[in-house]
Amino acid sequence: MTKGRLEAFSDGVIAIIITIMVLEFKVPHGDDLSALHSLVPVFVSYVLSFVMMGIYWNNHHHLLQAAQQVNGRILWANMHLLFWLSLMPFVTGWMGESRFAPWPVALYGVDLLLAGFAYFVLTKALVAHHGRDSHLAAAIGRDIKGQLSLVIYLVATPLAFVNTWLACALYVLVAVVWLVPDPRIEKTLTAREK
Amino acid sequence: MTKGRLEAFSDGVIAIIITIMVLEFKVPHGDDLSALHSLVPVFVSYVLSFVMMGIYWNNHHHLLQAAQQVNGRILWANMHLLFWLSLMPFVTGWMGESRFAPWPVALYGVDLLLAGFAYFVLTKALVAHHGRDSHLAAAIGRDIKGQLSLVIYLVATPLAFVNTWLACALYVLVAVVWLVPDPRIEKTLTAREK
Amino acid sequence: MTKGRLEAFSDGVIAIIITIMVLEFKVPHGDDLSALHSLVPVFVSYVLSFVMMGIYWNNHHHLLQAAQQVNGRILWANMHLLFWLSLMPFVTGWMGESRFAPWPVALYGVDLLLAGFAYFVLTKALVAHHGRDSHLAAAIGRDIKGQLSLVIYLVATPLAFVNTWLACALYVLVAVVWLVPDPRIEKTLTAREK
Amino acid sequence: MTKGRLEAFSDGVIAIIITIMVLEFKVPHGDDLSALHSLVPVFVSYVLSFVMMGIYWNNHHHLLQAAQQVNGRILWANMHLLFWLSLMPFVTGWMGESRFAPWPVALYGVDLLLAGFAYFVLTKALVAHHGRDSHLAAAIGRDIKGQLSLVIYLVATPLAFVNTWLACALYVLVAVVWLVPDPRIEKTLTAREK
Repeated sequence: MTKGRLEAFSDGVIAIIITIMVLEFKVPHGDDLSALHSLVPVFVSYVLSFVMMGIYWNNHHHLLQAAQQVNGRILWANMHLLFWLSLMPFVTGWMGESRFAPWPVALYGVDLLLAGFAYFVLTKALVAHHGRDSHLAAAIGRDIKGQLSLVIYLVATPLAFVNTWLACALYVLVAVVWLVPDPRIEKTLTAREK
Repeated sequence: MTKGRLEAFSDGVIAIIITIMVLEFKVPHGDDLSALHSLVPVFVSYVLSFVMMGIYWNNHHHLLQAAQQVNGRILWANMHLLFWLSLMPFVTGWMGESRFAPWPVALYGVDLLLAGFAYFVLTKALVAHHGRDSHLAAAIGRDIKGQLSLVIYLVATPLAFVNTWLACALYVLVAVVWLVPDPRIEKTLTAREK
Repeated sequence: MTKGRLEAFSDGVIAIIITIMVLEFKVPHGDDLSALHSLVPVFVSYVLSFVMMGIYWNNHHHLLQAAQQVNGRILWANMHLLFWLSLMPFVTGWMGESRFAPWPVALYGVDLLLAGFAYFVLTKALVAHHGRDSHLAAAIGRDIKGQLSLVIYLVATPLAFVNTWLACALYVLVAVVWLVPDPRIEKTLTAREK
Repeated sequence: MTKGRLEAFSDGVIAIIITIMVLEFKVPHGDDLSALHSLVPVFVSYVLSFVMMGIYWNNHHHLLQAAQQVNGRILWANMHLLFWLSLMPFVTGWMGESRFAPWPVALYGVDLLLAGFAYFVLTKALVAHHGRDSHLAAAIGRDIKGQLSLVIYLVATPLAFVNTWLACALYVLVAVVWLVPDPRIEKTLTAREK
């Protein structure tokens, strides 16, 4: 089974998730700067989620670039990832509108945790299909970043009830870790082309 | 006529349907767990519809993988399928917001029935174009699952007025039947490649 | 300039237009059949617009299948067509919610007229680029259907103020004319492949 | 890394942005012409933003047509551009609903400025990857238009507090400058193909 439609479908879903998040910005009733004031937390949560979705798209892009073919199990592992990502507009909107209240911040972390776990499952399904000696398996390696992210989310989510800003700082930390481009996959891909 | 744009267009429509269903989750006004409580039935109906849409995308993917080309009749049979799928966000939202009341649960079943019937018509149009001896026809076979689904929907829909949970259990049953990957098409495709 | 991205972008826009039209179906507050009653005109207008968008996607598909390449002028002629199509959710929603009042029905016709005119301009831009002797020009031919549609819209729009149902019947007539597959383009394409 | 998925993802996001802008047109409650009257400023701002998004898609299309491959830095420069474009539905809606009040008009200019700057950064990232002697670098040239646009936005934004129509006239001026097709890139592309 070719991977083209899986990529196209995932691109479509991620593109729509990113874009409908902006629908949470309700056009304010006033027409001066103070009308924007109440939108600041919504904007901050939007920026964070936009970056997170960008990271997922980027990693998904790299991952499937390294893949050669897909099977039914991979299709469903991918659908599972898209499910948790599809809840991002909701958890982002709730976090922003509640001005970063404990429960919404914790739920945001839970969704990130489940999406991260789904991504982990997807990599496992891909490695199982391509073999442990494949370039894909080499490219993914031990996936320190992915597992570190899950640990940080696990710590950050309960922290939301102690200090919401600390929890958010940890979410931002994960984003920063991933924003640094992953040299392993690019290196392996480059090596393969030689 | 090549099938590329038909696949791309269907991917787009299904991706958007899946994603705008999440817009039915209105961000709650409260900021604690009780605010989420009223969203539970909306979430449950969302999960069911997400899985159903995933199954349709998956089957559509398999079906068109086996197809070689399309004609005007196939384009319209596909459009007909997309029409009933496009009503999924509405019937899902109504079922969730009414907390699984009889009429919304029945209407949900009617939409599933019509989408299933449209899928059946699409397979017929594809087989008519490729011939009864084609790999596609072999891959579809007698389509027991598809016809079984239609029968279950026919039974489940009136049952919604007797016991909504029984009707929903039957919808879930159809999903489970399809979630098991279809070995026939994959087998035929693999055989063809040899 | 290759036509691939123009097709992909148009597919995306048309897929989204079709799908967001369904957002006009607001989930009703009641949970029985009477709650659906007020949605009937919205549904009827949705069906009509879905068919119209399907026709546009189908014709667009055929047209660009016959095209070999595009230029800046064609890109903008296509964007112009997408502009009028992008207003379809609005005019459809207004027509449905006003229960087919004269002004909304007339505005619907105006939008169809302008979209039809934009399609005509797009065919002219494509023929100008490919030459009068090209397969594309032969495939489009004298475009009787396209010009007939424009004439019907021109008649139907003012008729909306006399009898809205007559105007709507004429819109449906245009849809029926187009639903019959266009043998000319398919014939020319088939001839070329030989 | 191939550019295909970057193009597809950008197409998706831009297509959705263009299409959800139309959701700002709330279906009016009345059913005659006066009901449309209050939508005129929303329509005008929609037309302007549609043209702007069309220009971005067009330029993006040309730019990536000239590109051969992408890297992580280019992916993020592209994501950065999509971020500012994703705010277009919001700033467009606010400008329209406030009937072109000073703050919304200024914010619209700020978003255009930041999107224009992000496009500039994207061209730099592409040139850095392809080399100063590449066809891409030659195609982009000194990018007078891009830099001129940034200067006009810088002038127009504060002008919104003096005279909103003057600011809007300058935004329209930028659109007109770009609507004239860019002969340099097309010329270089044509030359390369020879």
